[in-house]
Amino acid sequence: MTSPFAALQRQLGPGKVLLSPAERGNYRFDGIQFGVRPLAVVLPETVEDVVAAVRAAKAAGIPVVGRGAASGLSGGAVPLQPSLVVSFTRMTGLTIHPERREAVAQAGVVTLSISDAARPHGLVYPPDPASFRTSTIGGNLGENAGGPLCFKYGVTGDYVLGVEMVDTDGEVHRLGRDAYDLTGLLIGSEGTLGLMTEATVRLVPPAKYSRTLQASFTSVEACAAAVSAAVSAGAVPAKMEFMDGACIGAVEDYLGLGLPREAAALMLVDTDGDDPAQVEAEMQLVEAAFLAAGGQVRRAETETEAAALWQARRSVSPALGRIRPLRMNEDIAVPRSRLPQVVAEIRALGEEYGLPLVQFGHIGDGNLHPNILYDPRSDDPAQVHELAHRIALVALQHGGVLSGEHGIGSMKREFMADAVDPVTAEAYWAVKDALDPDGRLNPDKLLPPRPTHLEDSHVHS
Amino acid sequence: MTSPFAALQRQLGPGKVLLSPAERGNYRFDGIQFGVRPLAVVLPETVEDVVAAVRAAKAAGIPVVGRGAASGLSGGAVPLQPSLVVSFTRMTGLTIHPERREAVAQAGVVTLSISDAARPHGLVYPPDPASFRTSTIGGNLGENAGGPLCFKYGVTGDYVLGVEMVDTDGEVHRLGRDAYDLTGLLIGSEGTLGLMTEATVRLVPPAKYSRTLQASFTSVEACAAAVSAAVSAGAVPAKMEFMDGACIGAVEDYLGLGLPREAAALMLVDTDGDDPAQVEAEMQLVEAAFLAAGGQVRRAETETEAAALWQARRSVSPALGRIRPLRMNEDIAVPRSRLPQVVAEIRALGEEYGLPLVQFGHIGDGNLHPNILYDPRSDDPAQVHELAHRIALVALQHGGVLSGEHGIGSMKREFMADAVDPVTAEAYWAVKDALDPDGRLNPDKLLPPRPTHLEDSHVHS
Repeated sequence: MTSPFAALQRQLGPGKVLLSPAERGNYRFDGIQFGVRPLAVVLPETVEDVVAAVRAAKAAGIPVVGRGAASGLSGGAVPLQPSLVVSFTRMTGLTIHPERREAVAQAGVVTLSISDAARPHGLVYPPDPASFRTSTIGGNLGENAGGPLCFKYGVTGDYVLGVEMVDTDGEVHRLGRDAYDLTGLLIGSEGTLGLMTEATVRLVPPAKYSRTLQASFTSVEACAAAVSAAVSAGAVPAKMEFMDGACIGAVEDYLGLGLPREAAALMLVDTDGDDPAQVEAEMQLVEAAFLAAGGQVRRAETETEAAALWQARRSVSPALGRIRPLRMNEDIAVPRSRLPQVVAEIRALGEEYGLPLVQFGHIGDGNLHPNILYDPRSDDPAQVHELAHRIALVALQHGGVLSGEHGIGSMKREFMADAVDPVTAEAYWAVKDALDPDGRLNPDKLLPPRPTHLEDSHVHS
Repeated sequence: MTSPFAALQRQLGPGKVLLSPAERGNYRFDGIQFGVRPLAVVLPETVEDVVAAVRAAKAAGIPVVGRGAASGLSGGAVPLQPSLVVSFTRMTGLTIHPERREAVAQAGVVTLSISDAARPHGLVYPPDPASFRTSTIGGNLGENAGGPLCFKYGVTGDYVLGVEMVDTDGEVHRLGRDAYDLTGLLIGSEGTLGLMTEATVRLVPPAKYSRTLQASFTSVEACAAAVSAAVSAGAVPAKMEFMDGACIGAVEDYLGLGLPREAAALMLVDTDGDDPAQVEAEMQLVEAAFLAAGGQVRRAETETEAAALWQARRSVSPALGRIRPLRMNEDIAVPRSRLPQVVAEIRALGEEYGLPLVQFGHIGDGNLHPNILYDPRSDDPAQVHELAHRIALVALQHGGVLSGEHGIGSMKREFMADAVDPVTAEAYWAVKDALDPDGRLNPDKLLPPRPTHLEDSHVHS
């Protein structure tokens, strides 16, 4: 049987269009989620290649799924139907404009390489998702990725001045952020409204100085209160990372760093800025608030000591891999004041299901990553999924949201029905239908199920 | 003849629904533009009142135009058809949440009063449109208003965490900024997609120290080069305001401050921050760059001196009113590197049309306000409009945009056909039709004319 994309392969060349089952099979998954093998994979080198691919998919009536480095954790880049995958890894054009403090990056540019190219000009691109050494800017745009620095410096979308986008018909749009902010609408839309092929992003001078503190607390309540007190006192740390007791134990089992196993919470905090006295003064605010809340505080005196303190946080992922081979990594964000109760309720749920569960995250903006650890050979995937759903409901019950920085993708899509009320779901679907009337752009991602009476009208029209 | 809003008046009470011609006549205009007298004016006190008004307008098939303090300069709040005007000035609920660094403000809250209420908690709301003593947050949201501080601190949309919105059917949405960023889409949409009734905005601690500098240049080229050199050297001033030679002359005629009449450009610059040494160091970067470009520099040593230097910039509006009774205030934004040529071309256009024209603006982000001064008793309005259009085209030819901070409204709506290519205009209209299928929300504002083939499909469907 001839592939519907054989003509596209002849048009673009065999190196740009993968049709063999073995090659296509590599494009089923992201960092955690699995989907189905795509019908074809396009590796565009120019926006014209993207246009050709999108038009071929339209002619064949086949879904289109964009993909960067596939380091995502929520399945945004995972095809759920037989699809055309557009993998942007060869679109790596990058230009730094120091005088305008801007970078123009094609979708396949690795996030960290923007800062690497800008640093000789005294500039950096601040958003720092954990995967930023491998993730692409296109994927970051699709998920509106955050990172430890986002409490102080903001998320991906805060740095985007404009994008180039190929729509479902293969038309190319060059969008700024004026009039209707379609750029803002596209950011975080997980490829369901169009494929972003290039972005112009803002660069800023990096902070010249930083200070590092590690603190442990005997309760999550004390830790959360300490964080709130520090923020209320005027501190805006660059990073504020939280690890729960289970997480501390996992890292300590792994590396034996001498972490306090008896602690219920460990905090890592960096302050930064251009004036060393100011950076120190801000850290003193944090330290005073943490001590007043009963925290045990350690300060790094050198960069080497700072790196040693941060090693605990950086070692979380490999430490968890030793406990169970797989994990379901949630990404809720809740009001900071609710953290103690949220952490306690989620811990109790883990115990109820008998599954190892650790919690860590960017506590400054209430972004928590409860990780369910499991072994697919012995644990029931349905139980894991049910536990993940109940964790999502805890976040929503406390006024939180389903995603702090990883996106909704396929993993949490089902939970969106709990998170979005029907009247707003209708507005989402109205926008989706307006920009993707055939529903071929990354289907079954992000959006809650279509409200029933809309589904009727869609079927009958 | 009974008003289609007589029943609404009975429902809400006569004080909330104005039907008499005299009362309605006051709602025809904003700060500059004139429109038609509305059919009725609603003064809602609650979101339920807004819902009732929007539903009454829907039942009667009549357009709805939102309105704040009517201090806008582009006609966004001006009804162009017989409409229902929803004037938000009584919806003034305001709550400060210091521990979350957030304010919840209803649409009618005066912009400056957010900072007034937050300052006792050590917090402010930075966006500072020139009208911020009278403008409302709802109007600022509709136009995504900026101000002098926006170069360093960002515009209205950068501070919005979520909104409450009443859609064209009278349904209430509470929107955050996750999933599809409908909040971001609404901000700057000038009431064409929904009526924002409340916003949750981010507050920040105000800078503790500031320094002020005034500088004059013998050419706009030297001034623009000086600004670019200062920014490239790492300075991010809080404010960077520019006045051209005609503007200097107008202010000097008015107040006799001793400004250099022979100068082609005057700059006012503030640096700010929490560390006085850092604030001074940043100003020294600016001063060095300005001196190297041939600028004559004056530094303020005290707050009184700083206020005296700023008086020149603050007096621009009254100074212009003495020259001609009316003015057309444009609001283009162009790449900073193009400013010298843009200022020269616009000055030449003013001379060609024989109309007094001054230019000033927030030069840090290339936002320029060319003001055409005219007298409707002696000057031809068609000539004024044509000149305004040619100024808009100069901005577009140099890679700029039609609005830096005032919005498009009715004033520049016609020019949008030059600014937005047809394929993106189609995307705008697709979104507009999705969220406002009857086209009753603030018609004939912001959007370029509907592309022809879309118009056909709209008529036939």
